[in-house]
Amino acid sequence: MQANKTNKTAISPTREQNYPEWYQQVIKAADLAEVSPVRGCMIIKPWGWAIWENMQRVLDEQFKATGHKNLYFPLMIPMSFMQKEAEHIEGFAKECAVVTHHRLAKGEDGKLEPASPLEEPYILRPTSETIIGDAFSRWVQSYRDLPLLVNQWANVVRWEMRTRMFLRTTEFLWQEGHTAHATAEEAMQESLLMLDVYARFAEEYMAMPVIKGEKSESERFPGAVNTYCIEAMMQDRKALQAGTSHFLGQHFSRGFNIKYLSAEGREEFAWTTSWGVSTRLIGGLIMAHSDDNGLMLPPKLAPAHIVILPIIHKEEDRAAILAYCQQLANEIRKIHYHDRRLIVEIDNRELPGGEKGWSWVKKGIPIRLEIGNKECASNSVFMGRRDREYKDRKTLSQQEFLHIIKAELDDIQAHLLLRAQEFRSRNTATINSQKDFHDYFENDGGFALAHWNGSAEVEAKLKQDLGVTIRCIPFDDQSGSGKCIFTGEPSKQRVIFAKAY
Amino acid sequence: MQANKTNKTAISPTREQNYPEWYQQVIKAADLAEVSPVRGCMIIKPWGWAIWENMQRVLDEQFKATGHKNLYFPLMIPMSFMQKEAEHIEGFAKECAVVTHHRLAKGEDGKLEPASPLEEPYILRPTSETIIGDAFSRWVQSYRDLPLLVNQWANVVRWEMRTRMFLRTTEFLWQEGHTAHATAEEAMQESLLMLDVYARFAEEYMAMPVIKGEKSESERFPGAVNTYCIEAMMQDRKALQAGTSHFLGQHFSRGFNIKYLSAEGREEFAWTTSWGVSTRLIGGLIMAHSDDNGLMLPPKLAPAHIVILPIIHKEEDRAAILAYCQQLANEIRKIHYHDRRLIVEIDNRELPGGEKGWSWVKKGIPIRLEIGNKECASNSVFMGRRDREYKDRKTLSQQEFLHIIKAELDDIQAHLLLRAQEFRSRNTATINSQKDFHDYFENDGGFALAHWNGSAEVEAKLKQDLGVTIRCIPFDDQSGSGKCIFTGEPSKQRVIFAKAY
Repeated sequence: MQANKTNKTAISPTREQNYPEWYQQVIKAADLAEVSPVRGCMIIKPWGWAIWENMQRVLDEQFKATGHKNLYFPLMIPMSFMQKEAEHIEGFAKECAVVTHHRLAKGEDGKLEPASPLEEPYILRPTSETIIGDAFSRWVQSYRDLPLLVNQWANVVRWEMRTRMFLRTTEFLWQEGHTAHATAEEAMQESLLMLDVYARFAEEYMAMPVIKGEKSESERFPGAVNTYCIEAMMQDRKALQAGTSHFLGQHFSRGFNIKYLSAEGREEFAWTTSWGVSTRLIGGLIMAHSDDNGLMLPPKLAPAHIVILPIIHKEEDRAAILAYCQQLANEIRKIHYHDRRLIVEIDNRELPGGEKGWSWVKKGIPIRLEIGNKECASNSVFMGRRDREYKDRKTLSQQEFLHIIKAELDDIQAHLLLRAQEFRSRNTATINSQKDFHDYFENDGGFALAHWNGSAEVEAKLKQDLGVTIRCIPFDDQSGSGKCIFTGEPSKQRVIFAKAY
Repeated sequence: MQANKTNKTAISPTREQNYPEWYQQVIKAADLAEVSPVRGCMIIKPWGWAIWENMQRVLDEQFKATGHKNLYFPLMIPMSFMQKEAEHIEGFAKECAVVTHHRLAKGEDGKLEPASPLEEPYILRPTSETIIGDAFSRWVQSYRDLPLLVNQWANVVRWEMRTRMFLRTTEFLWQEGHTAHATAEEAMQESLLMLDVYARFAEEYMAMPVIKGEKSESERFPGAVNTYCIEAMMQDRKALQAGTSHFLGQHFSRGFNIKYLSAEGREEFAWTTSWGVSTRLIGGLIMAHSDDNGLMLPPKLAPAHIVILPIIHKEEDRAAILAYCQQLANEIRKIHYHDRRLIVEIDNRELPGGEKGWSWVKKGIPIRLEIGNKECASNSVFMGRRDREYKDRKTLSQQEFLHIIKAELDDIQAHLLLRAQEFRSRNTATINSQKDFHDYFENDGGFALAHWNGSAEVEAKLKQDLGVTIRCIPFDDQSGSGKCIFTGEPSKQRVIFAKAY
């Protein structure tokens, strides 16, 4: 708490000392979420939920601007539907939660138990390609019905063995886009367009640089022909898959009979895609920017941009200071910043100034304004930025503050992105031999750009030996062809290897 | 379809002929939703979902303006939690869907089946008082933590025997507010405040008049001390419970041990409330306003306010007409109407003008603009209102149209409310004898205001004999005390009886 007084950090342990535990403590200190009594599920608390609402607002607008319409499908999927695409059920069978009964009634021992078995069990959706594919088969009849572009915001359930808040939870919140097209080319364009929407969102809103690319076959979505992804680097140099977009070919249209009559009168199978991002993005946001004093939020997604901290030493000053804070807040709220108004909180809690200030540092709010007698008398503010040292504060006249606040927030946003880009650059290496590869990952590691022959066996061995996987085959690799560092066989381009969440 | 030509209605059957079937056909013709392959669950299609998004936007703003914060709790509730409040489990046991297994694996016959039984089954939340009560017991420690005011937007599952689209579905979408307070009085005020938020929303946005009141004991939420409700009249004169707000007393704080240390240092149980509205409101919206030509939407909640219908008779006019439509749409989109911009669609489908126009009548869009050669040449619009006859259209200059459009939409909004109020007035009777009561409900019926002695036995008999229930004990009844028409016993005020959804 008294990081300024004792040189301790507000979060303990530090990133250096114990990164996974630091992550949990940042979440706790910012009051983003907590574990629930339900296996692998969390309670997303107001400060965490507000970040998700901001993410939803921005993404939803992007989806609509690219022609998609929202709708809603049932949570429960008939078990038989899951089996209509062979790779799909193969991939998800282990993660299914199954509803087998309805009604509770007292058993012989007087305790309540599940009473009425269902004729066919339902699966809680781990993803909705199957039930949406079934609907698409009814909705798509003619080429005039295409493209069909829909999205839903929903909860999904995947029974994961190891869970971690935001990054991997049994239930999570996400959006899933599903589209059907007349041609493979159009469907492919759609997959890549939505990947681009995700990449821009990550960089422009989350201030989190990402690499766009294609997954190797062994990392593909179950049922996809190609899976495209955005991969980000966390501060422990591990990769986070932050969003995926799948070109599903005709796999699901054959499984669910999604056919259309072409302009030429031929019956054809449609081409489909799906794409999604989830509350996992919040985990990425936390790990991309936070420091040993807690969360650090990019202004464009922060639940509030500014906190006003009244600092009252004498009771007789209270009324004047609070009135000044209120007037200041009113002025701030008149200002539009990107797609919303500036959001300001006044923290009137009866706490020592330092404790109050540090509580907002830990919550990651971009700007703190301390307002005491002096500021009140001189119509000024004492401003601190979350991305600078706690002590690095300055006095500005109110007028000047109101004049620069938008630029100040944009500067924070840009600074977070730049810092993350620099971190990733420092921790990305071009690797040209198997020995260097092992050395790299047996030490600190990061992203390794290396040639690979395309073999799944090589991938499997690296995963087993080093816990390293191919994160993606990047789109923008300029390195050209070479030789696989593991086999000496030809390679078209370098791919990105990393440990990953 | 050709209602204008043949005097047929666009929806068949009419309300008069078969009201329940008319309701289904309105939903189908407007493409709001469809039945899904999952028992009792529907697919909410884009036009229906957009209405829900509008409802959510307005209500969410109201919840935030009254100090509530959004958060999110798990979908699955441990079975043991459901049993901690005796009345609660009693009320919900029959409606629980139960998750008993995770993982699918091949059985002896080679077919997939649920594989790993859970130690304790999970219930899909029918409502979240229990799991939220458990969290409140951790979050509430001192009087300083109160009031605690939260809300979540979520899906819930109730295994209902008879389902009907929007009105009663196995899975539905809703918001559930949950609050904890230091005193009974504060909690009661909260319940009534949120009831008022619902009532204003129903009247000011849905244009659906509602009666605020308290439920009789037999109609209370399982576990509530008092349940308050808003009740609306549908066009078949049945009541629809459109929203409820519960004063839960200390039932759940005792069940889940939600205690706080008072300012005086005493340990006290908190007082809690909960309140919710759901996608059922869409059912209410449909049944309150639609006519035999389909859906009729109040402008404040319509997914789009205006449709522009290019009417192209000669190919050589196409470019000019489409350019004019685009220019007109651009002008319309500059206009702010209440909490959003005006939303306009251009329908470029290659269909006869009448068929195009009628398709939008059935979708309930408030304003249609037909644009042909004449309008294009004279810079005018040919405007029709959904709340008037199809043929009742008029020509306005574009300038005049842009000038009056907001007032025109407000007029539609006000007209729908007025018409619904008049309908309710015409179908509400003050009843003073048991014979008149039976006559009333054996004929057309509606809302009956009658004295009642407070007896649950009287209620049970009326439900069995006539299918009539007490909808609420209205707050604003001015009739004073009298004698119960069924027993002759004293009654404090008249209550509202009706058949109900």
